[in-house]
Amino acid sequence: MTDPELSDLEVAHLLADAARAATLPWFRRQGLRAEDKGSAGYDPVTVADRAAERAMRDILARHRPDDAILGEELGNTQGSSGRTWVLDPIDGTRGFISGTPTWGVLIALGTPECVILGIIDQPYTAERFVGAPGVAAVSGPFGTDPLGTRRGSTLADAILFSTFPEVGTPQERAGFEAVADKVRLTRFGMDCYAYALVAAGQVDLVIEAGLKPYDIQAPIGVIEAAGGIVTDWRGGPALQGGRVIAAANQRVHAEALDILSKVPAD
Amino acid sequence: MTDPELSDLEVAHLLADAARAATLPWFRRQGLRAEDKGSAGYDPVTVADRAAERAMRDILARHRPDDAILGEELGNTQGSSGRTWVLDPIDGTRGFISGTPTWGVLIALGTPECVILGIIDQPYTAERFVGAPGVAAVSGPFGTDPLGTRRGSTLADAILFSTFPEVGTPQERAGFEAVADKVRLTRFGMDCYAYALVAAGQVDLVIEAGLKPYDIQAPIGVIEAAGGIVTDWRGGPALQGGRVIAAANQRVHAEALDILSKVPAD
Repeated sequence: MTDPELSDLEVAHLLADAARAATLPWFRRQGLRAEDKGSAGYDPVTVADRAAERAMRDILARHRPDDAILGEELGNTQGSSGRTWVLDPIDGTRGFISGTPTWGVLIALGTPECVILGIIDQPYTAERFVGAPGVAAVSGPFGTDPLGTRRGSTLADAILFSTFPEVGTPQERAGFEAVADKVRLTRFGMDCYAYALVAAGQVDLVIEAGLKPYDIQAPIGVIEAAGGIVTDWRGGPALQGGRVIAAANQRVHAEALDILSKVPAD
Repeated sequence: MTDPELSDLEVAHLLADAARAATLPWFRRQGLRAEDKGSAGYDPVTVADRAAERAMRDILARHRPDDAILGEELGNTQGSSGRTWVLDPIDGTRGFISGTPTWGVLIALGTPECVILGIIDQPYTAERFVGAPGVAAVSGPFGTDPLGTRRGSTLADAILFSTFPEVGTPQERAGFEAVADKVRLTRFGMDCYAYALVAAGQVDLVIEAGLKPYDIQAPIGVIEAAGGIVTDWRGGPALQGGRVIAAANQRVHAEALDILSKVPAD
């Protein structure tokens, strides 16, 4: 039964604290070896990933035993509440094994229809971006600040991020590049940090493809709470991942969608 | 006359402290507008850049009046000592205006033949990577650690970084991609942080083109002190920028140079 002593957001913070403690000791540790999960391309899994997901699952077993869990590393755990915790213990494993500080822990609580809350936690920079009912804030070494997306930007004025220049299939790459041709500045390589920067009002667009639910549900929670929009490339729900666009405001979303919606389905 | 009270490294730390104080208040500040310097493409200059370089120049005027200065924003100041302080107040201005935490301050002291010392300072993460005679260390929120490049890596095993997927001219891009085809993992977007990660033993190769002296002299100082190698794409000196390769060890350097040295001069 759900532990009534702790709110959902308090549970989410416990998960983030546990994942931070489980991942940080492994970051930049000499001799950390990534295994190759061997699906499509290079997909490293580290000890830190699994330790963090296990630590989060232990907390959920204690405080939210009726909720389902979907985790990147350890799969599905059924629940009875209709609610699911969606966990990516290290988003940006490639960044993690390269020593870059922009990997993060993604935690979301959702139903099949919507995200209830999301956390993008950055263990190394000690920043935690939170979106939940009535909450949109980042806390870290420089204190706590409200999150809010950029209101006035247009596509011509926009800063656009994606993780890899390949983006996805050749068609998906072409769609992305057609948007990139119209914006002020395009940058790569930030993993989940780019979504956090949309919520923080620093970045206008993140466009990606081939995402999994655990890659995007926490960003949805944070960005929607901060006033932004996350959809698929045709304006539909992005909860299941796939082709995703996160936008600071309706105008920049609509302008980018004008281009992306013309990319044929695979 | 050179102030005998302070060593070169102490002066360099003063510069880094001053640049950190001048830049950080502007980072992620709402309404910070980048001007376009208007040379080739989008080249933003912010108030923070100029304030930081001015603060560093004030310190040098007091403690090292005989040394020359080459700064990204405020140009050349002649000296009489044969030594030059080479300053990039914000390396990664595009990252800075996007809110990413990987921009840095670059400080080097050199002669026409070599780099005497280098600092890659990361104001936001509070990490300072230092290479100087007898010193190769990073200090930050997690304490101070020695720097040392990865010794055993080969090209097949390497992690490669560059700032932009375009790299430079189409020929330069093709050369970069020929190397990227051989490595384990290629990532983009870290600015000077990628060089710091070579020194920290996390990354094996950084390959870029079109660099200026102030982009590369501080990384040379840090990486050489940590046991790595920085040259141009033919194995010659990289002090003046241009096409640059930074490598963790001789083997990975030689394997990458086998490919890059075949790229025709412009």
